[in-house]
Amino acid sequence: MGEFELIRNYFAAAPCAQGGEGVALGIGDDCALLAVPPGEQLAVSTDTLVAGVHFPDPCDPFLLGQRSLAVAVSDLAAMGATPVAFTLALTLPTVTADWLQAYARGLNQMARACGVALVGGDTTRGPLSLTMTVFGRVPSGQALTRSGAQPGDWLCVGGELGNAAGALPLVLGQRSAEPVVAEPLLAHYWSPCPQIDLGLALRGKASAAMDISDGLLADCGHIALASGVALQVERDRLPLSNALVAFLGRTDAARAALSGGDDYVLLFTVAPGRLAALQAEGWPIHVIGRVQAGQGVTLVDNTGQDITPQIRGYQHFRETP
Amino acid sequence: MGEFELIRNYFAAAPCAQGGEGVALGIGDDCALLAVPPGEQLAVSTDTLVAGVHFPDPCDPFLLGQRSLAVAVSDLAAMGATPVAFTLALTLPTVTADWLQAYARGLNQMARACGVALVGGDTTRGPLSLTMTVFGRVPSGQALTRSGAQPGDWLCVGGELGNAAGALPLVLGQRSAEPVVAEPLLAHYWSPCPQIDLGLALRGKASAAMDISDGLLADCGHIALASGVALQVERDRLPLSNALVAFLGRTDAARAALSGGDDYVLLFTVAPGRLAALQAEGWPIHVIGRVQAGQGVTLVDNTGQDITPQIRGYQHFRETP
Repeated sequence: MGEFELIRNYFAAAPCAQGGEGVALGIGDDCALLAVPPGEQLAVSTDTLVAGVHFPDPCDPFLLGQRSLAVAVSDLAAMGATPVAFTLALTLPTVTADWLQAYARGLNQMARACGVALVGGDTTRGPLSLTMTVFGRVPSGQALTRSGAQPGDWLCVGGELGNAAGALPLVLGQRSAEPVVAEPLLAHYWSPCPQIDLGLALRGKASAAMDISDGLLADCGHIALASGVALQVERDRLPLSNALVAFLGRTDAARAALSGGDDYVLLFTVAPGRLAALQAEGWPIHVIGRVQAGQGVTLVDNTGQDITPQIRGYQHFRETP
Repeated sequence: MGEFELIRNYFAAAPCAQGGEGVALGIGDDCALLAVPPGEQLAVSTDTLVAGVHFPDPCDPFLLGQRSLAVAVSDLAAMGATPVAFTLALTLPTVTADWLQAYARGLNQMARACGVALVGGDTTRGPLSLTMTVFGRVPSGQALTRSGAQPGDWLCVGGELGNAAGALPLVLGQRSAEPVVAEPLLAHYWSPCPQIDLGLALRGKASAAMDISDGLLADCGHIALASGVALQVERDRLPLSNALVAFLGRTDAARAALSGGDDYVLLFTVAPGRLAALQAEGWPIHVIGRVQAGQGVTLVDNTGQDITPQIRGYQHFRETP
């Protein structure tokens, strides 16, 4: 038995591979089998993380285990899907038991938190990279897409922005900070919390939704394009954490929130009549702008003046650590 | 728009991304949505191919496009599933329009042949590798698994063995051969033909099935273990192509067939009473041995003598080009 076959057996025995509702056949055959109840559809998304591109190499494998799965599950949250299962394609330069055990511990912890079971995958030799494919259930016709935003809707996010991008100098060891600043930023980078419950709550209420991975303005552009509308973002409404402002100052904190990426909080649009009901339910919703007729994305200050050109050319964190 | 976003748009416009039966929402949102009819389950499999490990680097991207998808779809055939869709996680060191166009042409050709639509994926920068996740439909409870082989069953394969392994010295440019020899071997390596229709025909008839990727004996070991039986392979019943025998000689051709891997033909077990019916339907079925009580895999010659030790230690082609 080769070392990679040993790894496959190792993952097959992992707690997160024990299956659950919706998994008719898990790891160990040519395919896994997923059961989809009548009236539901299966949401599917694939994400790749490459060492040295999407995360520093070397890094803590436990944290990588958490982050690699959370990033992928966030796409299910963005569709309003209930997470069910995932496959893992793991490419490793060498097989190290310590690395694998730590990675699997992080993966298991996030899998339990998200309610997903590992149902299959592949393990190969090569430069370190991970590809996750995640599966979720959603009632037919109720998935949240990017294409339903309407002029007059509010533009909202489900949490603070810019923390993961702000954490990058810490992740890369380029800067240091007091624990009260560093810890919350690093936690956002390494253990993003997919907003699964918020996604479920938005079904039938939000007109469009996605998760923020490329950066707020870039992802607003995706909704604007898919919905055929214009989005106006108000700079002074951006939810910024105390840690981020303390670390970067308010101006750069806002830039990280606008362009940094890797937030993995939900970005969505909602008709005014539906916003109040969601807020009354206690969801952490921040209104950051509005949907208008037209196209494209503009950033305005608190006087309504267009300040979009000021953030153009800001460093794009993604794919450049 | 970054070059990798351009690629995503390029693939989104590819013919194989136009969707079809079972695809409720294709490329372009956070997730794709797959519809699974009542009474059916979704079969899922993930495969990674790494440059320099699973295929030579550089290689013809058109051929790589064909092979990368065929290898993955073969797992659906092995479950008796009807292929529906796939996602592609493509990691590239640089973006080259010529390479991408040729790769997509090969991918499209195989996607049409297999009846699958590209429904999503990811495109990242890094050392060349490809991860495919494939999806197929199968009536609930009818999927072919590895665990149902019974003593008394015949052990069968769906086609010639060893051609892809035999092709490796040609693929790697270590040897050359006359076209009449080289072409069929190279075709098996670069354009394996997933036995989708045979898999469908075996539903309700085969007691166990899988596709041969690791090599006949290794894969027989998987069925033996999963089913709790012994498998006896008869060396002189192995279906060998004329090209393979001409290229390697009969002894090494048999070794390639036993241990070479990458065949992507179906390996299955079937009760005697059901074999005749399948053969009468004209399926290309080769009986290569039988299922017995016990455990493990043995190779016998035409006198019934155990010759398993003779092939031990034979080069394992997989993960070692």
